[in-house]
Amino acid sequence: MTVVGLGPMGAALADALLAHGHPTTVWNRSPHRAEPLVTRGARRADTITEAVAASPLVVVCLKDYEAMYAVLDPAADALSGRLVVNHSSGTPEEARAAASWADGHSVGYLDGAIMVPVPAVGRPDAVLLYSGPEPLFTAHRAALESLGGATYLGADPSLAVLYNTALLGMMYASLNGFLHAAALVGTAGVSVESFAGIALDWFLPSVIGTILRSEVPQIDARTYPGDAGSMEMNLTALDHIVRTSAEQGVDVDFPAALRTLAERAIAEGYAANNYSVMIEVFRKQRAAVS
Amino acid sequence: MTVVGLGPMGAALADALLAHGHPTTVWNRSPHRAEPLVTRGARRADTITEAVAASPLVVVCLKDYEAMYAVLDPAADALSGRLVVNHSSGTPEEARAAASWADGHSVGYLDGAIMVPVPAVGRPDAVLLYSGPEPLFTAHRAALESLGGATYLGADPSLAVLYNTALLGMMYASLNGFLHAAALVGTAGVSVESFAGIALDWFLPSVIGTILRSEVPQIDARTYPGDAGSMEMNLTALDHIVRTSAEQGVDVDFPAALRTLAERAIAEGYAANNYSVMIEVFRKQRAAVS
Ligand SMILES: NC(=O)c1ccc[n+]([C@@H]2O[C@H](COP(=O)([O-])OP(=O)(O)OC[C@H]3O[C@@H](n4cnc5c(N)ncnc54)[C@H](OP(=O)(O)O)[C@@H]3O)[C@@H](O)[C@H]2O)c1
Ligand SMILES: NC(=O)c1ccc[n+]([C@@H]2O[C@H](COP(=O)([O-])OP(=O)(O)OC[C@H]3O[C@@H](n4cnc5c(N)ncnc54)[C@H](OP(=O)(O)O)[C@@H]3O)[C@@H](O)[C@H]2O)c1
Repeated sequence: MTVVGLGPMGAALADALLAHGHPTTVWNRSPHRAEPLVTRGARRADTITEAVAASPLVVVCLKDYEAMYAVLDPAADALSGRLVVNHSSGTPEEARAAASWADGHSVGYLDGAIMVPVPAVGRPDAVLLYSGPEPLFTAHRAALESLGGATYLGADPSLAVLYNTALLGMMYASLNGFLHAAALVGTAGVSVESFAGIALDWFLPSVIGTILRSEVPQIDARTYPGDAGSMEMNLTALDHIVRTSAEQGVDVDFPAALRTLAERAIAEGYAANNYSVMIEVFRKQRAAVS
Repeated sequence: MTVVGLGPMGAALADALLAHGHPTTVWNRSPHRAEPLVTRGARRADTITEAVAASPLVVVCLKDYEAMYAVLDPAADALSGRLVVNHSSGTPEEARAAASWADGHSVGYLDGAIMVPVPAVGRPDAVLLYSGPEPLFTAHRAALESLGGATYLGADPSLAVLYNTALLGMMYASLNGFLHAAALVGTAGVSVESFAGIALDWFLPSVIGTILRSEVPQIDARTYPGDAGSMEMNLTALDHIVRTSAEQGVDVDFPAALRTLAERAIAEGYAANNYSVMIEVFRKQRAAVS
C-alpha cells in the first residue's frame, strides 16, 4: 500500500495500514513528515513516481483536489493500471471530475470520505464512506477495512463527498439545536449537564431519532399527512419558541430562521402537511432575491 | 382526581387515571366531551366548582393559560387548599404568573409539560415534566405516575414549559438538519430509507449524540478549546455545505443561516474556539437592527 499525503489524517491512515501489517510506502511534499512513520516501519519513497510505482493501491489524503492534481499529474503514467483511493475533502463535482481524470489516465478511482476524527482512524467502528466502481471496492475492501469500517455507497463517485457534506450539515443543525436549547434552559440556572440528562440521553435518541425513523417510508412515498400535526401547528410552535427566546433574553435569530422555513413551506402550499414536507421545500432552490 | 379540560390530551390524561383505577371526576366547557369518559367509569361534574371540590388534585389540560383563568377563576374559593397541576402549553412568564395566581388563592400549583403525543399518554416511557414546590410533587408523584414517567425539574414553576420549548426547538433544528441532508443526497438518487441507514441508525446517535455528550463538561466550564477544530475551520466546512447545496440545486437558505451564525461567533471573537462556543453566541440576544 502507498499513502500519499502525510498531514494529520494521512499519517493516521498510514499508521492504520502499518498496524494491520501491510507493507506501506509513504510520500509527502514536505519529506520530514514521513520520518515518524519510517520509524514505525514505513518505507519512504523519494519521488511521487517511486511512491505510486510501489503499490497497486494508492491511498491519497491531501488538503483538497487541487493538491491531488498537483501531486499526481506528474506521476500519471506510473499510476496507469493502479487504483487511487482519494480521501481528500471536496465537492460532488470535484469528485466526478477526478473520476474522469483517472479514467483518462487508465487509473482506477474510488472516492472516499472519512467521517471520524484522526484518533478514531483504524478502529472498526470508524466510518469511512466510499463510492465508485463496485468491483474496485470489492477487490480492495480488505485493505480499506484496515482504515476503519469501510462502507460502500454506490457507483457514482460523488456519493462519498455528498454524504459527507450532507451529514456534516445535519450535524451543525443538531449541534445548534442542542446549544440553543441549553442556552434557553440556562436562563433558569439549569446546567448543561442537567439538561443533557434529558435532552441527549433521552430526547435526541428516543424522540427525535424515533420520530424521524418512523417518517422515512412516508418521506420516500412523498406523502406527508398532517392529521397528527400540520405545518400550520408547527408554525405556531416555532413562533412560540421565538417568543420564549425573546422573553428569556437569548438569541432569536436561530429559531426565527427555523420559523422562516416553516413560513416558506406554508407559502408553497404545504400548510396542511406534516413537518417532513420540509424536504420538498429543501429540494427546491429559491431564486436569488434581486 | 379531577380532570378539567377534555380535549384530545385532557381526555387521554383522564383515561390514564381511570386505567390506573383512580376515581376520576371530569369537567369540560362543552359538556358532551365528557360522555365517552363517563362510559369508561368517570364521574361528570355539572359545574367547575363541583369538579374541583370533588378531589384534592385537579389536573388541568386546557388550550392555554388564558383558558385556565377563564375556567378556574370562578372556582377559586373551592380550589383553596387543593393542588392544581396545569398541563396547558405556555411561556415561562405565564407559568410564573399562574403560580402567583394560585398562591394568591391559597392553591397549590405545579406546572407540567407533556412531551409525548396523545397515544403515548399513560405509558411509563411517556415523559411528563413537572416544576414547582418539591413537597407538592413528592406528595402527588404516585398519581402523576399514572399519566406517564413523571420527571421533576425543580422549584421554579417555569422550568417545565422552558424545557418543553427548548426541546421542541432542538427537535425542529434536528428535523431540518436531517431533511436538508436527505434532500442533498437525494440529488444523486439516494432514497431516504437508504440515507437513514447511515444518518439515523449510526450518525445521529453515535456521532452527533456522542460529540455533544463529550462536550457537556467543557460547556458547563465555559471553556471551548479549539485545538481539535476551531470556529474558523467550522466556517470553512459550513461554507462548503452552502456551496455544495448550491451546486446540487437544493436549498441554500438553511445552511446559509447556519453559516451566518458561525460568522457571528467569529465576529464576536470566538474564531479559535470549538463549535460548542455557539452557546455563548446564543446566550446573547442581538440588538434589533434598526
Ligand atoms: N483532520 C481531520 O480530522 C479530517 C477528518 C476528515 C477528513 N479530513 C480530510 O483529509 C484531508 C487531509 O487532512 P489533514 O488533516 O491531514 O490535513 P490538511 O492540512 O487538510 O492536508 C495536509 C496535506 O496536504 C498536503 N498539501 C497541501 N497542499 C498541497 C500541494 N499544493 N501540493 C502537495 N501537497 C499539498 C500537505 O503537504 P505538506 O505537508 O507538504 O504541506 C499535507 O500532506 C483533507 O481533505 C481533510 O479535509 C480530515
Ligand atoms: N395534543 C397533543 O398532542 C399535545 C401534546 C402536548 C401538549 N399539549 C397541550 O395540551 C393542552 C390541551 O391540548 P389538546 O390537544 O387537548 O386540545 P386544545 O385544543 O389545545 O385544548 C382543548 C381544550 O381547551 C378548552 N378550551 C379552549 N378555550 C377555552 C376557554 N376559553 N374556556 C374554557 N375552555 C377552553 C376546550 O374546551 P371545549 O371542548 O369546550 O372547546 C378543550 O377542553 C394544550 O395546551 C396543548 O398545547 C397537547
